[in-house]
Amino acid sequence: MKDRKLLMIPGPIEFTPEVLRAMGMATASHIAPNFVDAFGQALERMRQVFLCPNGQPFVLAGSGTLAMDTAAANLIEPGDKALVVNTGYFSDRFAVILERYGADVTQVRAPAIGDAPSLEAVEAALRAGDFKLMTVTHVDTSTAVGTDVKGLAALGRQYGALVVVDGVCSVAGEEMHQEEWGIDLTLTASQKAIGVPPGLALVVAGPRAMDAFQRRKAPVGSYYADWTQWLPIMEAYEARRPGYFGTPPVNLIWALNVSLGQILDEGMETRTTRHRLLSDALKAAITALGMKQVPVGPDRMATTLTAPYYPEGVDAGVLGRINQAGVILAGGLHPEIKTRYFRIGHMGAVTASDIVATVGAIERGLRQVGYRFEVGAGLAAAQELLT
Amino acid sequence: MKDRKLLMIPGPIEFTPEVLRAMGMATASHIAPNFVDAFGQALERMRQVFLCPNGQPFVLAGSGTLAMDTAAANLIEPGDKALVVNTGYFSDRFAVILERYGADVTQVRAPAIGDAPSLEAVEAALRAGDFKLMTVTHVDTSTAVGTDVKGLAALGRQYGALVVVDGVCSVAGEEMHQEEWGIDLTLTASQKAIGVPPGLALVVAGPRAMDAFQRRKAPVGSYYADWTQWLPIMEAYEARRPGYFGTPPVNLIWALNVSLGQILDEGMETRTTRHRLLSDALKAAITALGMKQVPVGPDRMATTLTAPYYPEGVDAGVLGRINQAGVILAGGLHPEIKTRYFRIGHMGAVTASDIVATVGAIERGLRQVGYRFEVGAGLAAAQELLT
Repeated sequence: MKDRKLLMIPGPIEFTPEVLRAMGMATASHIAPNFVDAFGQALERMRQVFLCPNGQPFVLAGSGTLAMDTAAANLIEPGDKALVVNTGYFSDRFAVILERYGADVTQVRAPAIGDAPSLEAVEAALRAGDFKLMTVTHVDTSTAVGTDVKGLAALGRQYGALVVVDGVCSVAGEEMHQEEWGIDLTLTASQKAIGVPPGLALVVAGPRAMDAFQRRKAPVGSYYADWTQWLPIMEAYEARRPGYFGTPPVNLIWALNVSLGQILDEGMETRTTRHRLLSDALKAAITALGMKQVPVGPDRMATTLTAPYYPEGVDAGVLGRINQAGVILAGGLHPEIKTRYFRIGHMGAVTASDIVATVGAIERGLRQVGYRFEVGAGLAAAQELLT
Repeated sequence: MKDRKLLMIPGPIEFTPEVLRAMGMATASHIAPNFVDAFGQALERMRQVFLCPNGQPFVLAGSGTLAMDTAAANLIEPGDKALVVNTGYFSDRFAVILERYGADVTQVRAPAIGDAPSLEAVEAALRAGDFKLMTVTHVDTSTAVGTDVKGLAALGRQYGALVVVDGVCSVAGEEMHQEEWGIDLTLTASQKAIGVPPGLALVVAGPRAMDAFQRRKAPVGSYYADWTQWLPIMEAYEARRPGYFGTPPVNLIWALNVSLGQILDEGMETRTTRHRLLSDALKAAITALGMKQVPVGPDRMATTLTAPYYPEGVDAGVLGRINQAGVILAGGLHPEIKTRYFRIGHMGAVTASDIVATVGAIERGLRQVGYRFEVGAGLAAAQELLT
């Protein structure tokens, strides 16, 4: 029997065999022609995947937190006012990072866990302040809450704030049109819907963000995150010339280029439609099994992950049973409710078969801990949408 | 005919098949038991490889520059005095990073390119100042100059400065006893003698460095580099519990654990002896072929790399010929002499066969560009020591 379990957490996700093969290739010099070509192509492809033809991509060795750090360190000067549209754990983190680089941070908080601030509340805050920058978490990995990035970005633009989107759990999964929607910087990490093992911080900065960076007077607070060093390197590789500041993570960048190619082969619209369909099917199954979700309503639900509350009488112990049934899910992360819910990631290369297998394992796990429900009801509800 | 060329640059180096297999494994969750075990074991093994049984290891997604950034950001508070023992390009960089975090930097410079400051000069500087910290570049990747880390560390300790060693091109290659020699922090990058593809910043901080960090009053300047976040994560994984701050680079950490295991199987003393022997053999070949080296004398020469000047009438074009002959070498990096010399990396899994193949390719390349020498003289000189 295969001992490999299906990994359905909010990252790292399941990666394609081609991506894993790139990871295991004999490492080339960072100035070898086959690496220079791959890096240059990956930078071009990032613009296409982020739908930001005039953006400047940055690929750095680091985690998604480094991508957040880079945005704050390069765009904030001490005393700048920043607005955080807060939808949970990762919005809290962004506020801390912005403050670290000297920002005066105002937060608009969601009325409840699982909700997001309304456009009206955000507009009131924008009108009251004079913000250089606002941050939006597209999908909060801790709660599966998705925000109306398009609406929020339009407001930010209207009030003259740079719009920074934490797309860690969204880019290449959720619908997102960076340039068309007026987003000035989108950031993500490799191990999410971009489909590459963890280790890359990915950023695309639009012209207004790059202008703000070029015009800054104070030095960037962090040395490693400073675009002053990285910009010439990204420009060099995109022009198919090697550059050196820090040694690039060769294998991860090869893997990134492979994955971006696969994403573009599928096509951005097809890809976001697939994510929505699979998400709808899984969420229908969750409802059919009698479970509520953390997001307060359908328009607050991400399509890259699902956060169900455990049903009455069931606790986190069920995750071990689901794991034995072959599927790895994640526990809660939001401090206030972490023992009451779990998380299912479904992004990147995820298929209808993965969704069905996941629902099957959840049903068997629930059955084993004594939860009473109509066996097969979840599978039927998912299948209804997948057929 | 095999099209794979031998990679003999100062990193990325040639990695073992076992390390590359770990890179290509299906990525696990960062809380999966097989990952938690591997990360915990890798942290324990770092102490053994760095020969620092009481040190605190840190493994972060990033380049070697992030490791330098981490040392400066966590140990420097604005106004602290720092002394840089300058042996080239990477010492210059350390001075810039220290200044970014508010240090008042004094530099002791080498009397000439290829040389290192004398112990007397460094002692005079230490005596004149009241330095919180001093940095030493063990092997300058730009010039192949090795420094007397043992002697310098003793001086730093004597004058009460924290001793920070940039071991990017030395750890697990050069002889280095972190704890015994009184080094307070050693840093390196994965793609050098540690033998893992690029993407990891590695640090071992001794008790005095951790004390200085714990006693600091100013917040750490960089958010991503801040040990406040990372220390509990490293402690958790070493206790075989998962922790979360940023998603760890799972595949790179698996590869790190494999490589550290291979290093310890060889044994640290055997390993440094092998590096010295192979280095001596290559340097004898370089001399036999009539080439001088950038380091001014044998006691300034690293054992992990070699930097020969091109012989009379030969320029960087010869590197293309050597590449066609099957071996990839690196050009010069030090701005003042970069067109006049080249660099050969020989660290990690490097073997006597690699050295012989490299000398053979150099001979064939030199022959093709018309340089006159006794064919086989380099090979004979190397072989004399390898036999």
